[in-house]
Amino acid sequence: MMKSNEQVQVSLRSSFWNRFREVVCQEGIPYQWKALNDELPTASPSHCMQNFRIAGGKAAGKFYGCVFQDSDAAKWLEGVAYSLTWRPDETLERLADQAIDDIVSAQRPDGYLNTYYILNGMENRWTNLMDNHELYCAGHMLEAAVAYYQATGKRKLLDAMIRYVDCIDSAIGPEEGKRHGYPGHPEIELALMRLYQLTQDPKHLKLAKYFVDQRGQAPLYFDEECRAMNRRCHWLDGPVGYQYYQAGKPVREQEDAEGHAVRAMYLYSGMADVALATGDESLSEACKRLWNSAVHRRMYITGGIGSTEYGEAFSFDYDLPNDTCYCETCASIALVFLARRMFRLDPRSEYVDVMERALYNGIISGMQLDGKRFFYTNPLEVLPQACAQDPHKRHIKPERQEWFDCACCPPNLIRLLTSLQDYLYAVQGETLYVQLYAGGRLEAQLPGGKLCFTCQTEYPWKENVCFVCDGTEPVQGDMALRIPAWCSGYTLSVNGIPVEEKPRMGYVHLRRVWKAGDKVELTLAMPVTLYQAHSAVREDQGKLAVMRGPVVYCLEEKDNGSALHRLRLGGITGQDFRAVWTDELEGVIALESPGLRELTEACGEEALYAPVSEASEKAVSLRWIPYYAWGNRGTGEMCVWVRR
Amino acid sequence: MMKSNEQVQVSLRSSFWNRFREVVCQEGIPYQWKALNDELPTASPSHCMQNFRIAGGKAAGKFYGCVFQDSDAAKWLEGVAYSLTWRPDETLERLADQAIDDIVSAQRPDGYLNTYYILNGMENRWTNLMDNHELYCAGHMLEAAVAYYQATGKRKLLDAMIRYVDCIDSAIGPEEGKRHGYPGHPEIELALMRLYQLTQDPKHLKLAKYFVDQRGQAPLYFDEECRAMNRRCHWLDGPVGYQYYQAGKPVREQEDAEGHAVRAMYLYSGMADVALATGDESLSEACKRLWNSAVHRRMYITGGIGSTEYGEAFSFDYDLPNDTCYCETCASIALVFLARRMFRLDPRSEYVDVMERALYNGIISGMQLDGKRFFYTNPLEVLPQACAQDPHKRHIKPERQEWFDCACCPPNLIRLLTSLQDYLYAVQGETLYVQLYAGGRLEAQLPGGKLCFTCQTEYPWKENVCFVCDGTEPVQGDMALRIPAWCSGYTLSVNGIPVEEKPRMGYVHLRRVWKAGDKVELTLAMPVTLYQAHSAVREDQGKLAVMRGPVVYCLEEKDNGSALHRLRLGGITGQDFRAVWTDELEGVIALESPGLRELTEACGEEALYAPVSEASEKAVSLRWIPYYAWGNRGTGEMCVWVRR
Repeated sequence: MMKSNEQVQVSLRSSFWNRFREVVCQEGIPYQWKALNDELPTASPSHCMQNFRIAGGKAAGKFYGCVFQDSDAAKWLEGVAYSLTWRPDETLERLADQAIDDIVSAQRPDGYLNTYYILNGMENRWTNLMDNHELYCAGHMLEAAVAYYQATGKRKLLDAMIRYVDCIDSAIGPEEGKRHGYPGHPEIELALMRLYQLTQDPKHLKLAKYFVDQRGQAPLYFDEECRAMNRRCHWLDGPVGYQYYQAGKPVREQEDAEGHAVRAMYLYSGMADVALATGDESLSEACKRLWNSAVHRRMYITGGIGSTEYGEAFSFDYDLPNDTCYCETCASIALVFLARRMFRLDPRSEYVDVMERALYNGIISGMQLDGKRFFYTNPLEVLPQACAQDPHKRHIKPERQEWFDCACCPPNLIRLLTSLQDYLYAVQGETLYVQLYAGGRLEAQLPGGKLCFTCQTEYPWKENVCFVCDGTEPVQGDMALRIPAWCSGYTLSVNGIPVEEKPRMGYVHLRRVWKAGDKVELTLAMPVTLYQAHSAVREDQGKLAVMRGPVVYCLEEKDNGSALHRLRLGGITGQDFRAVWTDELEGVIALESPGLRELTEACGEEALYAPVSEASEKAVSLRWIPYYAWGNRGTGEMCVWVRR
Repeated sequence: MMKSNEQVQVSLRSSFWNRFREVVCQEGIPYQWKALNDELPTASPSHCMQNFRIAGGKAAGKFYGCVFQDSDAAKWLEGVAYSLTWRPDETLERLADQAIDDIVSAQRPDGYLNTYYILNGMENRWTNLMDNHELYCAGHMLEAAVAYYQATGKRKLLDAMIRYVDCIDSAIGPEEGKRHGYPGHPEIELALMRLYQLTQDPKHLKLAKYFVDQRGQAPLYFDEECRAMNRRCHWLDGPVGYQYYQAGKPVREQEDAEGHAVRAMYLYSGMADVALATGDESLSEACKRLWNSAVHRRMYITGGIGSTEYGEAFSFDYDLPNDTCYCETCASIALVFLARRMFRLDPRSEYVDVMERALYNGIISGMQLDGKRFFYTNPLEVLPQACAQDPHKRHIKPERQEWFDCACCPPNLIRLLTSLQDYLYAVQGETLYVQLYAGGRLEAQLPGGKLCFTCQTEYPWKENVCFVCDGTEPVQGDMALRIPAWCSGYTLSVNGIPVEEKPRMGYVHLRRVWKAGDKVELTLAMPVTLYQAHSAVREDQGKLAVMRGPVVYCLEEKDNGSALHRLRLGGITGQDFRAVWTDELEGVIALESPGLRELTEACGEEALYAPVSEASEKAVSLRWIPYYAWGNRGTGEMCVWVRR
């Protein structure tokens, strides 16, 4: 069993990630606070904080927003909590304290705390667990409460949420007289497990385990709930049914990642937490099966998941359309949550490879480089005209948006990016796993003592990573360095002596007594590599994608002209690419390569169909930018997969 | 100006078309009559004829069906009328007479005849011209009335419909006190022009011209109608707006083929009729512009039109997805109607090339070879799993259906196939245009006398067409033979003497005094030809389609295994194909070619993305069948466009 991450203290000094984190702190957190308080004149209204104030009797008015509006504040608060751990800010902390005052003021005497029902009629609470996100909001606020307590030591929100959990526990559960329900949108499971890790109170584990175990059991609770309320679940009219909620069957019987992708990832994360805490093998097996389904057969090369807008959901194996996909930012973020937990269950680098893929590509693509605009969906191919004129692509936006009616993604980005330091390392027994390479300093508490390193690297742009031990005393320990799956050639030395040790489960283990000045030098060769998709992926057949290290690249109209589909690689290899640093896009390695462009003259303007002729192509120079940075220079076409 | 087609009498003896026509007469007409009378136990209910009987007081009950349910009977009746001209059938004629009795019995004293409003409240008639298809149904019934009169000389339905036209004329029109409306679904325009050709009554022309001219004029009638009825046009929420109805602006200002494809084709057909009758140049120009938009930038290689299920509509230039297209059977049929009229305005072979493309491909694909099942949409690529699991492809059916709630396509096929003989030839002045090659005999009334030929050909399977003159007297005349655009090599002789004359506007003109025994021998070389799409067509980039003569071919899973996307042509040319006659599929030329199949081992079962490796492909033999015959051997994958 692996303990949680708090054994590692990390001070991040990565030029790549620090920029993102600073943008989030300087721009994102204040910007989103304004959004939550309707202070952005042109953005979709939120009313989120006002709902709490009205529910707390501090303001007059009615509830406004989605049924899950409370969760936006929760995620913002959680992100603020993480930021305070490495970037103290008294003003911000006071603001968060005030927000907590407003939130807690809404709590009812019995502990209940959900503004939608408080303001719309408490008599209806717990009557639509399927669709009204009550437990989902509770989960997010619980995560915020735990994070804020851990960051500041302040218990106000934590105590309020423990009372709310008691309230939920009194209403829902296996015992007679309680509703035998569970959330339509999972989230509370993993949140309860975070609470349990803090409180070690068995009732918190018990409730989380109940939600996991009860899900999808016959007779189906959602069926009963619909019958009681004379509703019909509209997903039953489509191919997905109750699996939209991952509730069509008991979780241990689920074979494929199905339904709403964010819900799936949150659920599987909670399942993994419960499996880890209880040692439940059948649950771990289910997690692995569902992970394999999602990641090996239903994931985009960017770490995006959710192939279809219908239900914001997984579709079927190898169905990965690039221009109609969903790939919600939240789904990739939740995939990172899951990956971290899967690693705890089973310490293999595969999980971290996926985490890294999502982080450097399909997640940070969700935010404008200035931190002020956001993608909800992260397509791999965009034709702005199609977004405007094809209603089946209306969910694909060719430019990031200020805010959303359903604003789940922006604060999810905040809480991930402000807690990024927690994902870099993991400790298990006497092993310090180095998961993600990023400059900074770490102190890891191992059984043999405190292991301290400074890490220097310009990852993901440069190949070299150097760790220097700066501990005061020698410490026995195992430093396990992840060799990323994308890396086909690395060199590793300790104090200049090459390491012969081969990777096990994706890690090279350096087991020794570490002394100050010990130096680990790792070079992860980053040649530009062309990737093909599995031959079952129809949409990528005959096409290739370009990566360098963990970074997926794309072509933009801005650099390569319009009609990107007319371009092809023409048989080039990775060696034909040139990596060039540019200060554009806040500083990235761009790529240049030769390529071919089909000339429009090849087929006269009037002939829609003509006998095939020798392709009339001209040699062109292609310019590639990191996928995550697309759409930062105006609106235009973009594509990741390019014809060979 | 060209006169209508009735100057040519054709007796069709084409093994290709006669089989279709016999299926339609022996199976389709009786089958559809059962459908219209709810005598098919497992098909969607129709209630169509019963609505008339209830409205006529012959039965009790309520209206059931779509607002345009009446039109199914009209199209059936129109098809029956055509069939009676070349296949007399007393029993069928008696049945049609009874149907007409039932239909006319529903007519109100003032001439009104629409069962939806008669049975649901006459006070609401004319209040929803935008969506309730009143004038559309009137148009179809009018076409049936004209056809039935021309076939049988019986005036009952014709007289009833002339009264109905008077009723419409009294309610709608430019004069004060009338509604200044026009149909949301065009059809009545072309029907009125057919009536006008028969009656030469100027008020029939005037009403048709009014509908054409008034359409889209400001202030927009549909806006006013919605306001009056407190409705909102839901197309205003999408990109298409009132152009869904081709009513967003006056027809002469419309630049692109937009909106619902069937409506567009019917409207443009009516416009062409009015332009021909009035000599209105601005209207002809609009027709040509809209034709060019539809055919040169928005048409599939099968003659399918309508790229999107949203609105069953055109989308935008060169947007031609193969697996989500609409390509409604009715739309291609209506494209044939339009093509015929465009030729009358401007006798170029281009229009007939499109007519032929639609006829041999995207139209007859709409009917099972046994005449009993139908496609509404005619996709160019089908993965049955996607149809089942991707709601955005739910409109794509992997197998033909027995009937539809909206059953417009099956009777449209009947009326087209039973009147096919009218599309083979056209007379203008002293010129007899040979449009489509099909065996049979024709008598054409030219200014110099009656020109009679027997045509022998196994078109579209064989290259030779032979016309032998069998008239009793020598006749001066110009026989204009269409050289199809697909044909890059032909030979032509008259009485064994090669013809040197080059085609003009797509026709070789043979001007002479024709005597009995004169023999015209035309060979249209039909090598298998690989076609590429215009380089702006994203979805076909890097792919080719296969044609032989006018017939588009496809690959089916049945012949080529599953995962058709793994196949590619591997650089073969048309010469690598072998054409093989098979009795399968009611007798077709199938094609065999070499090809390459990517091996699944090329990319291990577990690696969704892997560095590109040499494609591991094996040589395979591909078998191609005519596109129109796909889906006749069980359910499976199909595709037209194949990677190079």
